[in-house]
Amino acid sequence: MEQVQAIVRIANQHGVPLWPISTGRNLAYGGAAPRMDGTVMLDLKRMNRIIEVNDKYCYALVEPGVTYFDLYQHIQDNDLPLWLSVPAPGWGSVLGNTLERGVGYTPYGDHFGMQCGMEIVLPTGELMRTGMGAMPGSESWQLFKYGFGPSFDGMFTQSNYGIVTKLGTWLMPAPEDFLSCSVYFENEEDLEQIVEVMRPLKIALAIPNAATIYSAVVKAASMAVRADFFQGEGAMPRDALRRMISELGIGFWNLSFALYGPTAVVEGQWAMLQQAFGQIAGARFEAKRLGDDLHYRDLLQAGIPNMGEFNTLNWIPNSVHMDFSPISALDGAQAVKQYQMISERANRSGFDYFGAFIAGWREMHHIFALGFNKYNEDEKSRARALFEDLISSAAAEGYGEYRTHLAFMDQVAATYNFNDNASLQFSEKIKNAIDPNGIIAPGKQGIWPARFASRRGTL
Amino acid sequence: MEQVQAIVRIANQHGVPLWPISTGRNLAYGGAAPRMDGTVMLDLKRMNRIIEVNDKYCYALVEPGVTYFDLYQHIQDNDLPLWLSVPAPGWGSVLGNTLERGVGYTPYGDHFGMQCGMEIVLPTGELMRTGMGAMPGSESWQLFKYGFGPSFDGMFTQSNYGIVTKLGTWLMPAPEDFLSCSVYFENEEDLEQIVEVMRPLKIALAIPNAATIYSAVVKAASMAVRADFFQGEGAMPRDALRRMISELGIGFWNLSFALYGPTAVVEGQWAMLQQAFGQIAGARFEAKRLGDDLHYRDLLQAGIPNMGEFNTLNWIPNSVHMDFSPISALDGAQAVKQYQMISERANRSGFDYFGAFIAGWREMHHIFALGFNKYNEDEKSRARALFEDLISSAAAEGYGEYRTHLAFMDQVAATYNFNDNASLQFSEKIKNAIDPNGIIAPGKQGIWPARFASRRGTL
Repeated sequence: MEQVQAIVRIANQHGVPLWPISTGRNLAYGGAAPRMDGTVMLDLKRMNRIIEVNDKYCYALVEPGVTYFDLYQHIQDNDLPLWLSVPAPGWGSVLGNTLERGVGYTPYGDHFGMQCGMEIVLPTGELMRTGMGAMPGSESWQLFKYGFGPSFDGMFTQSNYGIVTKLGTWLMPAPEDFLSCSVYFENEEDLEQIVEVMRPLKIALAIPNAATIYSAVVKAASMAVRADFFQGEGAMPRDALRRMISELGIGFWNLSFALYGPTAVVEGQWAMLQQAFGQIAGARFEAKRLGDDLHYRDLLQAGIPNMGEFNTLNWIPNSVHMDFSPISALDGAQAVKQYQMISERANRSGFDYFGAFIAGWREMHHIFALGFNKYNEDEKSRARALFEDLISSAAAEGYGEYRTHLAFMDQVAATYNFNDNASLQFSEKIKNAIDPNGIIAPGKQGIWPARFASRRGTL
Repeated sequence: MEQVQAIVRIANQHGVPLWPISTGRNLAYGGAAPRMDGTVMLDLKRMNRIIEVNDKYCYALVEPGVTYFDLYQHIQDNDLPLWLSVPAPGWGSVLGNTLERGVGYTPYGDHFGMQCGMEIVLPTGELMRTGMGAMPGSESWQLFKYGFGPSFDGMFTQSNYGIVTKLGTWLMPAPEDFLSCSVYFENEEDLEQIVEVMRPLKIALAIPNAATIYSAVVKAASMAVRADFFQGEGAMPRDALRRMISELGIGFWNLSFALYGPTAVVEGQWAMLQQAFGQIAGARFEAKRLGDDLHYRDLLQAGIPNMGEFNTLNWIPNSVHMDFSPISALDGAQAVKQYQMISERANRSGFDYFGAFIAGWREMHHIFALGFNKYNEDEKSRARALFEDLISSAAAEGYGEYRTHLAFMDQVAATYNFNDNASLQFSEKIKNAIDPNGIIAPGKQGIWPARFASRRGTL
């Protein structure tokens, strides 16, 4: 961290822009790549100390290079009664994922919401601690988020205002019992009712974690490859899709969520939830406990990091993907509208709808993984055009992305343009004030320092 | 809001500092008063529109002048199945309390944690919306907090960076059943064990709301006045304290919390919690439902606004009070240490320990209400000296306040001085960048614009 400060000071002297990465595993959103050419990558993966895991107060304090696998292993090695919340690929950085406002699949799945305390190297090299970290000798840095005065943590997420060198995160006390629940729905049209049934259950936390509704293709991709069902050009036709669903015994929509707590409570909730979703004709139910034969999605709901989701990328050969990730209201009609908007455009461009809705406190992250063959130039250019179209079509309906790939940051930032881009202008006013030489991650999230303002929109 | 923008622009032209207040009910922390003389009060209480209360997604969008009473009344009038979280005095502003990071007594008691979306008049007059509010046409402004890019909401709490003109807040869906629980403990020494028993229950949310441990005097003050038990000078002696406890049938420590949900679940939890706290010898239990004869604390746990706590101010004649509010770890030994530090100093200065511990996610807000007779100059000066001593004695042990009275903002800000006041320096760098004329609330939370920097520490 003194070395990070020294590097930042040198970068200021020489006007060299830096692109800090934790582990650089930000796949689907640009990986480790910087936004602007001429930027030097500052790779922090060797800052990989787990500074503290505290089972009395249930938190961890980590450096940027600590992965979910690392932290999980540490907890197992020390036999601590703590559960992680992990994103789909377990190789990522705990700190990096939180700063990008990634999500996980336990009740602690709002990773930024569960963050408590940061240490930051500011763009001019000073070291700052947020919250109670500003009070020397405090034992509450990882216990109380806000401290005294303005709460700055949020502005260091999805931004280029500093380099976070330590991050606190709350951990869930191990629950007495755990039930990973799946519900399979037969029909495309069920989506609306699934979300309508789910809304009050999510808001009241009768479903305590990020319930996820997977499309048939996503579910199938964890069990098979596309060529098993269709070898032609363009999007998979309807009849192949139906054959796939029937052969694999999956749903057109596949809902996952989990329950945590004393056995009696968990079983009472599961009975109630089966009754609720049982209103939808054809719904089939499945529940698993630890020790059963678990799908990678079940593991995620137990906070066990894995790389299962990456298998789904084998759906097509030589696949790479970018995630289009609009926020949807927790509303059936809105979900259907987004599903139709995306799937119709995707199919027209020759891509399958590879999507899922992840339900948070009162909204859903709708994730459409746009996969394409990296050696196929035609597919690549169709993918890019589709992505641009999706951003603008979604914005026209008031839908905005929660996060995006590097290549589209300027475009997405420009859609959040209430009152003449007031928010982006404010972001850049702050950028110029705290980073006058514009050295930290220029262009990230569409925020350009004055010095590189001419690079906006160029790639 | 256009008028607020116009006022801000005029204030900039003439260099007139403004002190925005919502309803100005910030009692114990300075009320409506500005920090610096020569500051014009900008009273927003006539901006009192309840813009929306949404029972589908369970949120409200309000202007600064809307009080908890107003919002509660609106919900009752429209028979909506929604519960508020309210601070002790119900007359305050929903928006103002949230911006000061006040707390309430339901599971939604972390008011800033439950906030979703702001509209802000910036110090130079531009209007900005945070989160999804930056996306024109979005229906998710009150559904998803973070939007795209840096999340700025936190920096507009406990600060002087803008005037918040609209604020979204999540509301709790009405629970099926409600049980307001009290536990009375006999002995001063029980404090340590109460907190130790409580910690894992709070972290696992087996106690879902802000459990509060009241000292004997606070509990007594809701039922009697000091003169009933002691008429002498100085702090109440031990024997009078014991007589008071015995006559009123209260505990030396009095714990309140509540349970929310289906009756079977609530009753199962209550049985488990009685067993847990029953380990402490002499613990007595009491539980009430809506419809029973409810104490004002029970009402608070049901989110029903009231002014009951103000009755406790009649403990002494002509009373006014300032709250000393350090954060404590959720730890028995730490709680005892803070209790001893404060009560010994208070008693030595001639004041009773009038305190409570309010347990949040992983910490406690320890609130010591320092009451004194406003017509007694000697008491007043002893109170002030005690308060200053408490701030520095607490800081020496690593304890910092979560909020403070106007008169002590500079002193408290100076205790959060990690790395040469890095946090305060950062706060002021931002202040000068976004408010170059220093017109919004100079000195609030110890943040002084360059223009008025010489006023730091003066009053």
